[in-house]
Amino acid sequence: MNARVAVPLAKAYRLLNHGPTVLVSSAHAGRRNVMAAAWNMALDFDPPKVAVVIDKATLTRELVDASGEFVLNVPSRQQAALTLAVGTTSGRETDKFSGVDAGATAASLVGAPLIEGCLAWLECRVIAEPHIQQTYDLFLAEVVAAWADPAVFSNGRWHFPDQQRRSIHYLSGGSFFATGDAFEV
Amino acid sequence: MNARVAVPLAKAYRLLNHGPTVLVSSAHAGRRNVMAAAWNMALDFDPPKVAVVIDKATLTRELVDASGEFVLNVPSRQQAALTLAVGTTSGRETDKFSGVDAGATAASLVGAPLIEGCLAWLECRVIAEPHIQQTYDLFLAEVVAAWADPAVFSNGRWHFPDQQRRSIHYLSGGSFFATGDAFEV
Repeated sequence: MNARVAVPLAKAYRLLNHGPTVLVSSAHAGRRNVMAAAWNMALDFDPPKVAVVIDKATLTRELVDASGEFVLNVPSRQQAALTLAVGTTSGRETDKFSGVDAGATAASLVGAPLIEGCLAWLECRVIAEPHIQQTYDLFLAEVVAAWADPAVFSNGRWHFPDQQRRSIHYLSGGSFFATGDAFEV
Repeated sequence: MNARVAVPLAKAYRLLNHGPTVLVSSAHAGRRNVMAAAWNMALDFDPPKVAVVIDKATLTRELVDASGEFVLNVPSRQQAALTLAVGTTSGRETDKFSGVDAGATAASLVGAPLIEGCLAWLECRVIAEPHIQQTYDLFLAEVVAAWADPAVFSNGRWHFPDQQRRSIHYLSGGSFFATGDAFEV
């Protein structure tokens, strides 16, 4: 597991504010899974909330529905192939953790694991909103703990040290963008 | 107005998939406004849907509540100062179109205007979900028309020609990231 330090909850939205693609990890009753989700966003500052789309067809959905918990993991460019792989295979057919070599570590407050090698992690508890879950596959959740690799995020700021340890933004097919130049206005 | 060509609705999600910060434009009964929103995401493919957070305190909220429509405009790095400005001032106090020199052009199917100089535009009609609008400031909408500047998006793909004509990702304060390198895995 790479280094990780706690991110104050009031700053947790900054882990998602720039729109990176995330990995959604989940677990319930001895089963676990991980999928990719470009469709995620921050929803509130403090207490921090997030929104993410989790399709009915996925094993992740079954595990999240059963446990009421998930982790949003922010992968690095080094993990783009893993991100694509877990976004295009089903946990119903394969153990994605062994299949794509996604190492996992226990989270602090939820049963879903933290994916090793990621840049940041948001431990989340689902806010029960069954109508939008059913109608739009849309899940709202409260962030109950947040972590980041201090090499890339500290004091509430991202500071990517090189081209590989950057967050990524999925487009379609196998195409991604890396998070690019930081600038101030 | 820069060039724009229609984006097929089934490809409209690709305008937001990489998580850019958008400008939300709105209009009702002779009033109009524009605000910045980092908290936006695609919600469905076809028909395309989007989700965006619109705070109760904003004039945009009043205009969207009254009209049931808005446009998500994808600004370029050249418009980062404008994006910050419309994200930090209120349309209740100033006409943001004149105050920040945000040129506007009529949309095709909604009353909200298209902001000139942006990279892409999604014309949206709100899906009535009053509970989540009220509780979370969360708006779901169907994309009824989509447009892009062909210099940056065509055939369903972004292809940023230079450093300035790129989408942007807001962090906090005056800090942004530009969309970075494209890569395939």
